[in-house]
Amino acid sequence: MKHIGKQTIQFDNPPTILETASIVGPKEGQGPLAKYFDQCLEDEFWGEKTWEKAESKIIKETVNSVISKSGISADSIDYCFAGDLLNQCISSSFGLREINIPFFGIFGACSTFVESLCLGSVFIDAKAAKNVLCATSSHFCSAEKQFRFPLELGNQRPPSSQWTVTGSGAAIVSASGTGPYITSITPGKIIDMGIKDANNMGAAMAPAALDTLITHLQDTGRKPSYYDMIVTGDLGYIGKDIVTELAETKGYNIKNNYNDCGVLIFDKEKQDTHSGGSGCACIGTTFSGYFFKQLKQGKLKRILLIATGALTNATSSQQGESIPGIAHAIAIEN
Amino acid sequence: MKHIGKQTIQFDNPPTILETASIVGPKEGQGPLAKYFDQCLEDEFWGEKTWEKAESKIIKETVNSVISKSGISADSIDYCFAGDLLNQCISSSFGLREINIPFFGIFGACSTFVESLCLGSVFIDAKAAKNVLCATSSHFCSAEKQFRFPLELGNQRPPSSQWTVTGSGAAIVSASGTGPYITSITPGKIIDMGIKDANNMGAAMAPAALDTLITHLQDTGRKPSYYDMIVTGDLGYIGKDIVTELAETKGYNIKNNYNDCGVLIFDKEKQDTHSGGSGCACIGTTFSGYFFKQLKQGKLKRILLIATGALTNATSSQQGESIPGIAHAIAIEN
Repeated sequence: MKHIGKQTIQFDNPPTILETASIVGPKEGQGPLAKYFDQCLEDEFWGEKTWEKAESKIIKETVNSVISKSGISADSIDYCFAGDLLNQCISSSFGLREINIPFFGIFGACSTFVESLCLGSVFIDAKAAKNVLCATSSHFCSAEKQFRFPLELGNQRPPSSQWTVTGSGAAIVSASGTGPYITSITPGKIIDMGIKDANNMGAAMAPAALDTLITHLQDTGRKPSYYDMIVTGDLGYIGKDIVTELAETKGYNIKNNYNDCGVLIFDKEKQDTHSGGSGCACIGTTFSGYFFKQLKQGKLKRILLIATGALTNATSSQQGESIPGIAHAIAIEN
Repeated sequence: MKHIGKQTIQFDNPPTILETASIVGPKEGQGPLAKYFDQCLEDEFWGEKTWEKAESKIIKETVNSVISKSGISADSIDYCFAGDLLNQCISSSFGLREINIPFFGIFGACSTFVESLCLGSVFIDAKAAKNVLCATSSHFCSAEKQFRFPLELGNQRPPSSQWTVTGSGAAIVSASGTGPYITSITPGKIIDMGIKDANNMGAAMAPAALDTLITHLQDTGRKPSYYDMIVTGDLGYIGKDIVTELAETKGYNIKNNYNDCGVLIFDKEKQDTHSGGSGCACIGTTFSGYFFKQLKQGKLKRILLIATGALTNATSSQQGESIPGIAHAIAIEN
């Protein structure tokens, strides 16, 4: 591989995304992408006693599913890269404690899924591994409880708020396969524009998405039109508009080929999630369920996947801190 | 690089640890390793209003220090790998939000420092980067507040409890340099032996340390005596004894060349930390302060550094979960 431009890595032998899997919660199962997911749960607990245990079960079963669908044995997966939103990433570590695969815990907030694909693809092209597993999860109820208010309180949600996706997305990245291929990655910098509104994550993360997008285009010498689709993770309606407008002021027109998983995963009229979906699983399930199939079937040939994360917690907000954002990008081509 | 045995990666062009830096709190500054640290703080707040902000300042200044000591410019550092114990790793993300280096957030609990060195060295040998920054932090006060009880409560600590190290360790890993070299890495699996006592982390993590140690020795075909020193991160007195005994039952004698950073960093008699030090910064500062200098001066030629982490949080303990452990190993040779 080689390092090109400011922060992009281009692969000599682009790793293949061999297979993906996705499991989502009931609300996502009523949304417009429902038919693309492997499984839509009927309740948020899935037979568990707590939301945290349910989230662990969701990532565990999603990982079992992707291994089973891929046709390769768990033994032949060399390393796993996973993380989630729960404190100390317990959804991943409890959910994956039995898989017996060397484990790299990662935390990029809602950028975690693409972060895992970035690291995994470096390992593959470096010949450090033949197959790696990348996974993430989030859960509306465990996230609300941890970051905002107890659900039982019935708090009103402001119009700029987003709805954390309940679900898990997982992918196996491999040295051999017939694509889609991860051709380059552009890991992002932490960008903090001073936004402090914890109910407007889209606005807090949009500048990071823009920075990574423009850096990727400059590093690779590409125009936005090189991609059939540029996809961000969970900026929602507000963040999507900000990125579109800011890109235009910088001379990049992305109006015709840009969308956001937080916009795609819920129905705006019927599901009233305010500014759209969010959470690690927003891009995790939308990519694993929808975009992977579009690529596999040749309906999309080149996409740029940019996952965004808000690197904040409940304590930092209470201490008056702003919300730093980050965005990692991968180019996936057929 | 090549993948050898079950889970070890051996480097073709072993990356150099170019420089390290360490800043510690007042208690660590009264301990036996005080003279090896770059800076010992006089109070836990370091002029900040909260412990979390103090921890962010500590990692920020440690990173500034390692860059300054290394003689290379921040611009020439391609990627940063960092994480910590605070919820959503805010010490790292707030501490490093201004350094303007593409950022991979990682979470391996107290194994984070070696996890960052593992990932960083793969990037270097893969030519994805010329220089990478690896950093971690922990803080006694922020950790006690988050994982156990408010310090103001004055809770009695059981004899098996450990003392979270206040401080930060940082390293720059580079493609060129005169060593010490990272020659191989053995990333670990999640090992859960069902231990539930959140006040006995050493016992919870010891099986993971043993698993990674034995796997490393088997993968490389080495005996424990190959290393001048085998060093674990923060098993403390209890965990160290468990690993020593368990290793013996498996046919490995490590009595003469094994020690633990949690044992080394505090004085057992004078400082009464019960079972010793712990936290991401325990191995972070002990390696960056003490072991790096021993290697650089040729007093040690080969060490195996095994950082251990307990993948738990306050909620999982309250929900009756056990404490999964993980351990990542790197071989460092001159």
